[in-house]
Amino acid sequence: MNTVKAWAALEPGAELIPFTYEMGPLDAEEVEVEVQYCGLCHTDIAFIKNEWGTIPFPLVPGHEITGKIVALGDVAKTKGLRIGQTVGIGWTNGSCGHCGPCLDGDQNLCENVKATIWGHHGGFASRVKAHWIWAVPIPDGLDPADAGPMFCAGITVFSPLMEYGVKPTDRIGVFGIGGLGHLAIQFCHAWGAEVTAFSSNAGKHDETKKLGAEHIVSSRDTSEWDVLKGKFDIIIVTVAVPLDWDKIIAMLGPKGRLHFVGIVYEPIPVSVIALLGVQKSISASPGGSRGVLDKMLRFAAHHKIKPVTEHFPMSRINEAIAHLEAGKANYRIILDADF
Amino acid sequence: MNTVKAWAALEPGAELIPFTYEMGPLDAEEVEVEVQYCGLCHTDIAFIKNEWGTIPFPLVPGHEITGKIVALGDVAKTKGLRIGQTVGIGWTNGSCGHCGPCLDGDQNLCENVKATIWGHHGGFASRVKAHWIWAVPIPDGLDPADAGPMFCAGITVFSPLMEYGVKPTDRIGVFGIGGLGHLAIQFCHAWGAEVTAFSSNAGKHDETKKLGAEHIVSSRDTSEWDVLKGKFDIIIVTVAVPLDWDKIIAMLGPKGRLHFVGIVYEPIPVSVIALLGVQKSISASPGGSRGVLDKMLRFAAHHKIKPVTEHFPMSRINEAIAHLEAGKANYRIILDADF
Repeated sequence: MNTVKAWAALEPGAELIPFTYEMGPLDAEEVEVEVQYCGLCHTDIAFIKNEWGTIPFPLVPGHEITGKIVALGDVAKTKGLRIGQTVGIGWTNGSCGHCGPCLDGDQNLCENVKATIWGHHGGFASRVKAHWIWAVPIPDGLDPADAGPMFCAGITVFSPLMEYGVKPTDRIGVFGIGGLGHLAIQFCHAWGAEVTAFSSNAGKHDETKKLGAEHIVSSRDTSEWDVLKGKFDIIIVTVAVPLDWDKIIAMLGPKGRLHFVGIVYEPIPVSVIALLGVQKSISASPGGSRGVLDKMLRFAAHHKIKPVTEHFPMSRINEAIAHLEAGKANYRIILDADF
Repeated sequence: MNTVKAWAALEPGAELIPFTYEMGPLDAEEVEVEVQYCGLCHTDIAFIKNEWGTIPFPLVPGHEITGKIVALGDVAKTKGLRIGQTVGIGWTNGSCGHCGPCLDGDQNLCENVKATIWGHHGGFASRVKAHWIWAVPIPDGLDPADAGPMFCAGITVFSPLMEYGVKPTDRIGVFGIGGLGHLAIQFCHAWGAEVTAFSSNAGKHDETKKLGAEHIVSSRDTSEWDVLKGKFDIIIVTVAVPLDWDKIIAMLGPKGRLHFVGIVYEPIPVSVIALLGVQKSISASPGGSRGVLDKMLRFAAHHKIKPVTEHFPMSRINEAIAHLEAGKANYRIILDADF
């Protein structure tokens, strides 16, 4: 018997309560990890509320996991992993290895992709399992206590820099300075780029500059945007609220890209003529591939990039959720497993 | 005195009538061309109708010009051009040379770009002038009588293949099999790619296959699209009408791109989540750079790609316009100068 202790929502919108389940046997390609820390992401809350309408319950959220390998399937043990090793597990939990995107190294776009918390029990638990490719060794220089958010928030904002060939000479705008945005600013600054943060919180300006933003502009007072017309090579949107998209697209320069890493539910009304004039693009991406994850971790360790975190014991998980929902979280909440 | 004979609309929506104007002195960087042929593009008609609301009148349309150089400014004569040389002039007529995009070789995205028919008299005329960089020598192997459309329709559909790194292994969809689309199919086929044409005209199937489309699918009966979900690497939209964009985006595979080269006036309602799942993009582009123009002409000559054309004498221009507007044009109409 391999009983997992966890925190689960039994139905949409419910408070999390203690919950146990049987993990069952480990598949040949799977790794079992003892959870030590797990970040709390807005998507966990969206899933608890069943905002996508497709989430199976009971739901054990949590997908910014760090912990130690406690068991390896027969294939997994041939992949350079060992018992006791510290690894991270993020949004993606499984990929098939044999579809087109997997063969191309885009495992996050796998046709048979599995998510850590979608039809699978996540990291607000004593144990979790994942396909070996998504149990990612954490390099020296990154503290496992704070590294969890790198596997979701971090890779989500880092991947576009790699995918779209963002250059150090580029001018980058970042909308939203929360869990994702504050990592985006650090990455883009370390990338060598000139970073402008668009924030609704004037009280955070000093902190945002310390993270690496050269300019800070209101995300609400669009009159401040007029002087920025045609300025940006890429604008990364980390927020999930409707904004004045036409004006944001107008701030892009030739071949500029408006890139979404957060899910804005309302359709974006895109004017073709606004894109066509100087060849602009709109795109969105989910997480990143395993190869990019490894490069991100190395880059973060090299540049001492890490999430700003607030820790709660996992037993106070409902309090942590309320804290995040109230907009009081200081960037990223991490839950320390205390089963 | 250098009097130009032309066909002009004196006010929005008017029939074209004979019109003369003084060309004035040639600037140092300019080239004067005696027009021999000029294609008729949908944008000419949109301009005659002042659909963009910003067009100065009298308007001399025509921006798919081929003809012979008859005069060269002092700078232009140092740029490898000579009197009597056959050149083409397309949408773009001038670029500054010193802005960022010009310095990057993206002259079509010039911050001070000039269009052949926007505040400038175009090619339905005995003479036209252009900055030397946009008077493009026509290589051997392309017939000047039919090459005009390459400078607007041709470059518009060819440029995305270069700009977005489209590969011969890609699966390409082309919506609309008119002036632009029938060139897109030829280019994509010569590119080595598997081409699917989306057409509203079942009567054109045999012709479309001859142009190089491997598959032909209805652009109206969307039930035919279900089996194409996730199939395309790029879909090029050459039409200007609203379509079922969600279903079109669903036909894109991982990292797929929906690319507009025609102006759809109604905003496209883009679902971020539909892009995000497997990292799709939406983009649009205007014409192409001078370097890409030269490569396109060489590629077209090499692969014997040319527009399918119908010729009218320029003196029957109003009849030609009516023919195009009635949907009767056989791909591309070319007007033969007969002043």
